[in-house]
Amino acid sequence: MSIATVCLSGTLDDKLVAVASAGFDGVEIFENDLVASSLSPKRIRERCADLGLTIDLYQPFRDFEAVPPDVLAANLRRAERKFDVMAELGADTVLVCSSVSPDAVDDDDLAAEQLHLLADRAADRGMRVAYEALAWGRFVDTFDHSWRIVRRAAHPALGLCLDSFHVLSRGGDPAAIRVIPADKVFFLQLADAPRLRMDVLQWSRHHRLFPGQGAFDLTGFVGSVLATGYTGPLSLEVFNDVFRQSDPNRTAVDAMRSLLVLKEKLGLVDLPRAPALDGYTGTEIATHDPALRETMTALGFHRTGTGRWRQGGATLTIRTGAATRITAVEVASTDPERSRRRAEALLARPDEHGVPAPDGTTVAFGTLANVAGEGLLTGIDHVSLTAPFDDVDQTALFYRAVLGLTAEPEAEFAAPYGLVRSLSASDGRVRIAHNVAMLRRGDWAPAVTDPQHIAFTTADALEAAKAMRASGARLLDIGDNYYDDLDARLAPPNLDELRANSVLYDRDEHGEYLHFSTDIFGDRVFFEIVQRVGGYLGYGVVNSPVRMAAHRRSRLRNSR
Amino acid sequence: MSIATVCLSGTLDDKLVAVASAGFDGVEIFENDLVASSLSPKRIRERCADLGLTIDLYQPFRDFEAVPPDVLAANLRRAERKFDVMAELGADTVLVCSSVSPDAVDDDDLAAEQLHLLADRAADRGMRVAYEALAWGRFVDTFDHSWRIVRRAAHPALGLCLDSFHVLSRGGDPAAIRVIPADKVFFLQLADAPRLRMDVLQWSRHHRLFPGQGAFDLTGFVGSVLATGYTGPLSLEVFNDVFRQSDPNRTAVDAMRSLLVLKEKLGLVDLPRAPALDGYTGTEIATHDPALRETMTALGFHRTGTGRWRQGGATLTIRTGAATRITAVEVASTDPERSRRRAEALLARPDEHGVPAPDGTTVAFGTLANVAGEGLLTGIDHVSLTAPFDDVDQTALFYRAVLGLTAEPEAEFAAPYGLVRSLSASDGRVRIAHNVAMLRRGDWAPAVTDPQHIAFTTADALEAAKAMRASGARLLDIGDNYYDDLDARLAPPNLDELRANSVLYDRDEHGEYLHFSTDIFGDRVFFEIVQRVGGYLGYGVVNSPVRMAAHRRSRLRNSR
Repeated sequence: MSIATVCLSGTLDDKLVAVASAGFDGVEIFENDLVASSLSPKRIRERCADLGLTIDLYQPFRDFEAVPPDVLAANLRRAERKFDVMAELGADTVLVCSSVSPDAVDDDDLAAEQLHLLADRAADRGMRVAYEALAWGRFVDTFDHSWRIVRRAAHPALGLCLDSFHVLSRGGDPAAIRVIPADKVFFLQLADAPRLRMDVLQWSRHHRLFPGQGAFDLTGFVGSVLATGYTGPLSLEVFNDVFRQSDPNRTAVDAMRSLLVLKEKLGLVDLPRAPALDGYTGTEIATHDPALRETMTALGFHRTGTGRWRQGGATLTIRTGAATRITAVEVASTDPERSRRRAEALLARPDEHGVPAPDGTTVAFGTLANVAGEGLLTGIDHVSLTAPFDDVDQTALFYRAVLGLTAEPEAEFAAPYGLVRSLSASDGRVRIAHNVAMLRRGDWAPAVTDPQHIAFTTADALEAAKAMRASGARLLDIGDNYYDDLDARLAPPNLDELRANSVLYDRDEHGEYLHFSTDIFGDRVFFEIVQRVGGYLGYGVVNSPVRMAAHRRSRLRNSR
Repeated sequence: MSIATVCLSGTLDDKLVAVASAGFDGVEIFENDLVASSLSPKRIRERCADLGLTIDLYQPFRDFEAVPPDVLAANLRRAERKFDVMAELGADTVLVCSSVSPDAVDDDDLAAEQLHLLADRAADRGMRVAYEALAWGRFVDTFDHSWRIVRRAAHPALGLCLDSFHVLSRGGDPAAIRVIPADKVFFLQLADAPRLRMDVLQWSRHHRLFPGQGAFDLTGFVGSVLATGYTGPLSLEVFNDVFRQSDPNRTAVDAMRSLLVLKEKLGLVDLPRAPALDGYTGTEIATHDPALRETMTALGFHRTGTGRWRQGGATLTIRTGAATRITAVEVASTDPERSRRRAEALLARPDEHGVPAPDGTTVAFGTLANVAGEGLLTGIDHVSLTAPFDDVDQTALFYRAVLGLTAEPEAEFAAPYGLVRSLSASDGRVRIAHNVAMLRRGDWAPAVTDPQHIAFTTADALEAAKAMRASGARLLDIGDNYYDDLDARLAPPNLDELRANSVLYDRDEHGEYLHFSTDIFGDRVFFEIVQRVGGYLGYGVVNSPVRMAAHRRSRLRNSR
């Protein structure tokens, strides 16, 4: 398993250390990292050897083929200088990208002839050339086109580099890869990406993701490449604005986890399977805001032990902590021990409390005690957590992979203080959401940043709201403008009741969603009570900006 | 002058206050802001009146026209509910966007007929409908198409809303707007944008900018609209991820400045013209790092007065300050008093030191004393400043507008700790650059964040580097990998000398650029010495990542 240094932030040495610590076997050395490094290629070679890393590829070499003779001469001189570096570095394969140069002409025979020449020069030094079709190459922009040229050149030191992004972003059919002989696939680069409708070059340079974080079918792609008989490294090459500025140690671990999940899907690694989940056994909140416990009581919870609270089918642990936050999510596993082993295999480090997730929450595995009791609340619908904007893709992948959840469609909405991304995953019983600012927030945003919440299920949201409000629960008031708009948009039959009880409403093609919230406690955590009618699939995200504005008002009022 | 509330961050009340303080006369009320507000429409009307704001538009109303009868009935009901809100609000114009609904059909006659019906309903209440072609409208996506429908509908309460983004993003010809009668242009919305090759909906929703910050010809566009005889508001409607989370008071001032600059170009406002500049009279640095003054001496500077230093044609003021930074840029104006008046007209607040720019630097205006003297340095080539990533577009516009500079092509490069945007503006004598992280940085990046620098000009960079190094100036060492790559890329004839003196090199079609840097002083400021050969236009940005990595090394070494 290998990774390109361009995936990570820092200097070359920062990157090599991070890559080795995360357990990779090899690296692709990205030229810019080497150029900016004070280490000579020879020292880099020694450094990699010390760290147990092989140098699997030197990249990229650009704009070589299908050019007039004078340009060819200059390009060969340039290549020889790079072969000098590679020789010192001990790298035997160079990536040559299909040309984007205005000097190039559209002539496959000429491209093949000149690549043959380059492969000759490489072979003289015991090196080889991996030719890659960039999705935005001037004339060669698909893998099958690059393969036709490589086949025509027919040189043992010339083969292909296949990159999932370049193939899948263009809608290429990976099944066609299977016709390529294994000894002609010199290298395999992997990147996922969200489906974006934008210039493919910008998409590639800014928005790639690690496998499993985007929308591409990496399993199918790698499956096709492996079907050729390819036995070289699976190597990650991810250009991503956020990863470029994040802690490389953390990014490297996340990258390795994503590769493990991919290998599991391909049957290349045997991880403990994710056991089926039976829902939540509870969640834990740390706080020292007394109002939180008061509202628990008003919501109908009662204490069942030290720090343990229950209301119908919903249980919660409250412990005293300096800052209010959701400290643990306890899920009911059909095999808690295997759940823990799976987490460990996915690079988590379980302790006596459970598995620490990248967002700081502990994931604990228990078994479901049959605790169904009387009460308005029947359990936990979802837990909404937070992660820094630059860690959320990795964090979400962690939860999905460890718990065996499926990603749900991502939502994005304009909140009062900026755009918010909402990622969620579910197996139908356990739902975990992460709501994060799209960009790191500016300083100005007042009031609540990054609130977390626990959403309890109820069979009757209107009744629950009435009863809880009557008990003095600090529930959020929603203004009339919302209901006037709701009337114009969806005209729910029970509009007056929704309005009277400050219950929010949404509808999709499967059903309805009624939900209401408490105030925010300890500047961080609130409770939501939700009722799903029919098969409604979402989380009422359309109402989130209204809820957020209402939370700000209630905080201003409470702080007076 | 008007602005849509969607341009700004915060709750509706935050926005209204910011808009009024910045001197706008009116607002477009964005529906989501109203829906999330606890203020009733009537209270919002009163609030606007108190703040001296007219409500110029209520927006948006979506997916109305060219639908089957049952959908039409529902849409009319929906419209009546919104007219109720508008009546309370005292808004008389509603924006109706061309439909993106799957319910709509491609039938201009039907669209015209149904819009006529809507206009009738509006007219009954003394209101009017401004129909706008979204650039991604399902059937109607150009202004001329929307105009054909409005003309066909022939209702006095039905007219057009023209939005510069929707017209210019599609490459529409604004000159064709001049055929539309003035009484049919109900509203004019203005937004600029960078030229991006991406889905136009995403481009519009995330990347709009205020006029003058992007690549669109707003002057030509507004000129065409005014040529119809349009006398309504010029209203800004800018959806931008960053502005959505920035301090609305600041954004509103920046928005107003951008509108003033646009109006100046159109001859609609008479601002003091920017006087020609003669270059720099100096710059001022605050520091308490003694190494900075030592290096000044080694660079050949000598004191000419309290805190004043000179070397040949370059002058500098060093004052003692707690944090090291460039505190002032002093430019030589042919009319300093007019320069100051211009700054004031552009919403700056000059004090006795000069004009405070949004990035915290003071811009001072002096007159050029003829100080040419002996020395290796001949003056200041450019000053490179910093601004938070979410303020840099506004900051750059401020410098351009106040100083009368022209924007140069924007550069973007991968630095060791993340992507960096480099914006610069110049009049050929004064060059101001801003280098900022593309995203707010993560916490991990060690060493230098946001360094500033002053670049002095020299006629011979190699000689200057030798002399300064001999005098003990703390100059940056550049590693061999850079020169080996330079040899492969550009093969400069004086490679050995460049290498021996750690001088960086670049070349464009106009000439060459030789440059070298000192260490960073006080964690913030360094000096660069640059030689332009021929008409080289850039700033050697290609070498920035190498310089940054070298700066990190030198800081680690110095901190040992």
